[in-house]
Amino acid sequence: MDNSISPLHPDRLFSTDPAARQLSQALYHSIAKLPIISPHGHTDPSWFADNQAFKNATELLIIPDHYVFRMLYSQGISLRDLGIPTVDGSATETDYRKIWHVFAQNYHLFIGTPSRMWMDYVFIEIFGLKETLSAANADFVYDHINQCLATDAFKPRKLLETFNIELLATTESAIDDLKHHAKLKGTCIENTVITTFRPDDVTNPESPKFISSLEKLAEMTKEDTFSWQGYLNALRNRREFFREHGATATDHGHATPKTADLSKSECENLFSLMIKGQFTPEQAELFRAQMLTELAGMSIEDGMVMQIHPGSYRNHNEPLFKAFGADKGADIPVQAEFVKNLQPMLSKYGNEANLRVILFTLDESNYTRELAPLAGHYPCLKLGPAWWFHDSPEGMLRYRHSVTETAGFYNTVGFNDDTRAFLSIPARHDVARRIDCRFLAQMVLEHRMSEADAYKLAKDLTYNLAKNGYKNTLQTA
Amino acid sequence: MDNSISPLHPDRLFSTDPAARQLSQALYHSIAKLPIISPHGHTDPSWFADNQAFKNATELLIIPDHYVFRMLYSQGISLRDLGIPTVDGSATETDYRKIWHVFAQNYHLFIGTPSRMWMDYVFIEIFGLKETLSAANADFVYDHINQCLATDAFKPRKLLETFNIELLATTESAIDDLKHHAKLKGTCIENTVITTFRPDDVTNPESPKFISSLEKLAEMTKEDTFSWQGYLNALRNRREFFREHGATATDHGHATPKTADLSKSECENLFSLMIKGQFTPEQAELFRAQMLTELAGMSIEDGMVMQIHPGSYRNHNEPLFKAFGADKGADIPVQAEFVKNLQPMLSKYGNEANLRVILFTLDESNYTRELAPLAGHYPCLKLGPAWWFHDSPEGMLRYRHSVTETAGFYNTVGFNDDTRAFLSIPARHDVARRIDCRFLAQMVLEHRMSEADAYKLAKDLTYNLAKNGYKNTLQTA
Amino acid sequence: MDNSISPLHPDRLFSTDPAARQLSQALYHSIAKLPIISPHGHTDPSWFADNQAFKNATELLIIPDHYVFRMLYSQGISLRDLGIPTVDGSATETDYRKIWHVFAQNYHLFIGTPSRMWMDYVFIEIFGLKETLSAANADFVYDHINQCLATDAFKPRKLLETFNIELLATTESAIDDLKHHAKLKGTCIENTVITTFRPDDVTNPESPKFISSLEKLAEMTKEDTFSWQGYLNALRNRREFFREHGATATDHGHATPKTADLSKSECENLFSLMIKGQFTPEQAELFRAQMLTELAGMSIEDGMVMQIHPGSYRNHNEPLFKAFGADKGADIPVQAEFVKNLQPMLSKYGNEANLRVILFTLDESNYTRELAPLAGHYPCLKLGPAWWFHDSPEGMLRYRHSVTETAGFYNTVGFNDDTRAFLSIPARHDVARRIDCRFLAQMVLEHRMSEADAYKLAKDLTYNLAKNGYKNTLQTA
Repeated sequence: MDNSISPLHPDRLFSTDPAARQLSQALYHSIAKLPIISPHGHTDPSWFADNQAFKNATELLIIPDHYVFRMLYSQGISLRDLGIPTVDGSATETDYRKIWHVFAQNYHLFIGTPSRMWMDYVFIEIFGLKETLSAANADFVYDHINQCLATDAFKPRKLLETFNIELLATTESAIDDLKHHAKLKGTCIENTVITTFRPDDVTNPESPKFISSLEKLAEMTKEDTFSWQGYLNALRNRREFFREHGATATDHGHATPKTADLSKSECENLFSLMIKGQFTPEQAELFRAQMLTELAGMSIEDGMVMQIHPGSYRNHNEPLFKAFGADKGADIPVQAEFVKNLQPMLSKYGNEANLRVILFTLDESNYTRELAPLAGHYPCLKLGPAWWFHDSPEGMLRYRHSVTETAGFYNTVGFNDDTRAFLSIPARHDVARRIDCRFLAQMVLEHRMSEADAYKLAKDLTYNLAKNGYKNTLQTA
Repeated sequence: MDNSISPLHPDRLFSTDPAARQLSQALYHSIAKLPIISPHGHTDPSWFADNQAFKNATELLIIPDHYVFRMLYSQGISLRDLGIPTVDGSATETDYRKIWHVFAQNYHLFIGTPSRMWMDYVFIEIFGLKETLSAANADFVYDHINQCLATDAFKPRKLLETFNIELLATTESAIDDLKHHAKLKGTCIENTVITTFRPDDVTNPESPKFISSLEKLAEMTKEDTFSWQGYLNALRNRREFFREHGATATDHGHATPKTADLSKSECENLFSLMIKGQFTPEQAELFRAQMLTELAGMSIEDGMVMQIHPGSYRNHNEPLFKAFGADKGADIPVQAEFVKNLQPMLSKYGNEANLRVILFTLDESNYTRELAPLAGHYPCLKLGPAWWFHDSPEGMLRYRHSVTETAGFYNTVGFNDDTRAFLSIPARHDVARRIDCRFLAQMVLEHRMSEADAYKLAKDLTYNLAKNGYKNTLQTA
Repeated sequence: MDNSISPLHPDRLFSTDPAARQLSQALYHSIAKLPIISPHGHTDPSWFADNQAFKNATELLIIPDHYVFRMLYSQGISLRDLGIPTVDGSATETDYRKIWHVFAQNYHLFIGTPSRMWMDYVFIEIFGLKETLSAANADFVYDHINQCLATDAFKPRKLLETFNIELLATTESAIDDLKHHAKLKGTCIENTVITTFRPDDVTNPESPKFISSLEKLAEMTKEDTFSWQGYLNALRNRREFFREHGATATDHGHATPKTADLSKSECENLFSLMIKGQFTPEQAELFRAQMLTELAGMSIEDGMVMQIHPGSYRNHNEPLFKAFGADKGADIPVQAEFVKNLQPMLSKYGNEANLRVILFTLDESNYTRELAPLAGHYPCLKLGPAWWFHDSPEGMLRYRHSVTETAGFYNTVGFNDDTRAFLSIPARHDVARRIDCRFLAQMVLEHRMSEADAYKLAKDLTYNLAKNGYKNTLQTA
């Protein structure tokens, strides 16, 4: 066959070995139609609350997708020319068709990247195009997508159904009012779209929003959030509010996974430095470390699953950050260390039956050295899937090859898409399912597991582990 | 064929590519029956001295195997329920059949792990079972194993013969009286079961046993072990005693591979702080560092091969350590650094003709970056095989793919099983032999070495390098 | 076929999968005859200026090749016995035939290493031998090579033509007079052999040659190189001189990629400490860091492409360094960190349109964690190929599998041979071309790119990216 015509070959991502390919296909067919569980991500809840049509291909597929515009930027295309909004509101390109043409002319830059696979899937599977994007068909594709978006079939709630999404968790700040989730109450997707509690704004004293966020937190909870006890009470209060809007999990985007186990008076003293703004970077890090332990303690109380996403150097490109703000493709991974960092928290709470902490990393050297050994011992620890830059065929393969021998399969929690790009969700889950089936097929054909075990695992990795891994542990237990 | 019936397929662990599989098989058949050289491990010498029958499947296969119970523990099964003895002697499960059932019911947790492969081998190859363990056959398997263990064919010395073990080194503390090895003198296995000199108790001032161990060392050697010179003399004395009991090697389980090259007066001053117990963690680390260099110097004198096993954070789980003691699956790898750490010792002794230092790591990022470049230059350095969590099919493949291009094959020392689990020894060596043959077959079929070279290397990696790599270097030279 | 006879099989280095092998071959044939672009290396320009015949196999192939003698040294063969010159001029082996025999007898040590592949290529493809080296044919091979070398066909300029080298960059110190390159002016290889500006001697205050180099620099440029401004002027002056001799790039071999962005007065103060020799190691590191930023600024002015080669612990073996000097196989990689280290320079200059910085690493853990994410964002950054110990089949495969998904192909710059071993150049480029075609074939057959894209990429990776990646950016723009 001519690969240039159909980029979505039914055997894509499977090994070239004929026997392995055949078994991968069989395993994949056994799970390809299972519902999507998306327990961690960053889609906008207003889409589902308001169910307005998406307007435009460029606005939907390019402008919000930092995977896409970071690659274009790396090749000298300015963010202004891509219509990325500026901090000061100064002009950027508003001709969406022109931006689309830039994307189409540079689509070859994405060859070999997951963005290319996701986009091809969106064009062909979701918008029903016969071929992928090129400079030649840029207008046709653009117009076609825009026509589709104007129809009811492409409204957000309908897409949830089309995509067979059983659960979609968004992520909101601890001081979000959750009005969009409130609007979902009583609708048929009340239990489909849930929130996740992300308190970074109120636990990171180095955030410029820290003090104003504490003030907002006080207002929302009627607690004295400038006293240590009132602050903790307020967090408990908000966690309850989030649970009422479906949350089963919390999420923590700290620079490192450092934890601490300080005495109450040490905590009070440290907190008082934080609220005065009189602290060294080391003291701020110690405060965040202590807060991970405090939040683990609250998870034991209320059963919320704790996710730790450490190790990103945020806004590395200062001029770009000043001009365009956060989340513009300039977050770069740094070395991470989990063993010494997690020790205080794990020695305090690591053996608790109803604590569950899901660890993620951007530093793949952690997989065999730290994460698999930790998860293969501590009852509270589970490993999240390959994350962000590693949410890719190669990244997922390295993950399975690295963690399975020490942590097994049952200390992992299936796939997370972790995306802002709603339309890419089916494509991302499809990649994960294919790679898992490829890995399982190889294990069977190397006689390292039985076929029966592989079929069972295919379903567990696709559905059961994701579903059960993010259940509130009190309800589970 | 139905893989679920025979987990021990003759082609297991070979590549799925038919040509590669065929050549892997041929290479494997050329070395599969070679005797086992096990130059580093932790079996109990009393087994071979006393030759008493093992009593029970649970006592033999579960309770001493931290690979097994750490995985069960990670899934919420308590160590008490697994019969692990407590530090304070408080009650744990003593119904071994019940423990066996827990293991059988959770045997699926081990899918994809080396423990599963080793256990399957033990069940099928060693105990002659037709199928592997399941909840359904748990009683049958348990009873069958126990019946076998009661027969002469399963007594320790007979198993040494059955397993075709030509050499088995155990590891003893510098202050061990080696009474079990003494008992072997004059028996037919006098040269089969040898000891290894492990002085960590008397070189690590942070060990709670440090002072009492020095006292014991003084008693054993009639040296003043609380003076620097007497202490060094005592170590030389014990090394000689160990050599009389077969030892050809020493072993050092330091937290890091840091070495130092201090003057005599600096050593004396540092040692005096150690014996007073008045030291910072940095001073203790410096003392251990200096001791690695001192011990390398002694190796040059007496020809003992030096092994360094660094980089494990021991007893990470404090409550578990307090309740159950050391070696309970809570030793977690940390980042290791060899280049700066080994430099003082290597600049002093690295070019000596009759020094041999075998390096191990738990941090695979060391392989291409540090260990292969070091071993591909320094005459004294050799690389030990993939260790502990990496003693696995994937770990071994990564090791060969990572180190061979820079260190070649002849700066490695074959396989070590490093195990406490006597019955797993044939299984572990079988995995190593299969993976090496798989790697060699791939090299041949990618035309990176000749078939003749591959057959020669298969034998060298399996037998000659292990045998020669651990010979006393004075006897070798 | 019998692999022992022809070590240069036409399918070497391709996957064993028949379909993958066939497509790899087809891709390879489409680019195998493309001219060699060698934009970074260390060949001796006097060879091309003087065009004298090479004299002897040992002198050409063993004595200058640290890959070769480091492996022999690691197995206990002394550098004296290999004819390596000593610092003090004391005697070393001068019987080149005897040295050749030692090499031949130990040629098995290189099985599985890239040196072996390169040497086999030299023997068979370049010298037309029918078989590779062995103890048995050592004299025959030695005599044959020496006879070849005496003919016109093996003179340096003729070999440039035979090897189809379109461009070869050498690397010279900032205070080199470039007399050999001057001699090439007006010859037919004036545009073939160019220089590269490497200012380490005048930017590294810890070099023993720092002060004398500054004096030489003053002499050459008539600038006051002991004032900050005069020093910078002198560097600009030399960059211009190098450009007049063909240079399009600079090269920086710092211990780390640390950069800084100090004020002018801080620079002046720091520089005055450097020239007084009154500095701490941290201040020297800060000076080198600032100089990387200064040199990036100069690259923006004059369009020279900047290469950073960090992370080697030079001359690790002190006694060997004292006896034999630098570049004797004792340079060992250490951990590298790019994200925090490059941040000051990147925030200052990283968004400049006509800056190009090519990053190299010896620490493969940087690939997915740091380098691909950085290069996939910053317009100025490109990734150099797998370097030094990783310039090998496995190293190149790991590189492509690691960086492509995040950086794409178009943020890389093709292959560099980086070699002193002139005769190995065709062999090294051949390995890179084969491995790239293997990788591309796999991508096609896993339906991750089209065949048409793979053919285009094969040419881009082999020729266009190397040629364009090293063009002066002012001429490009």
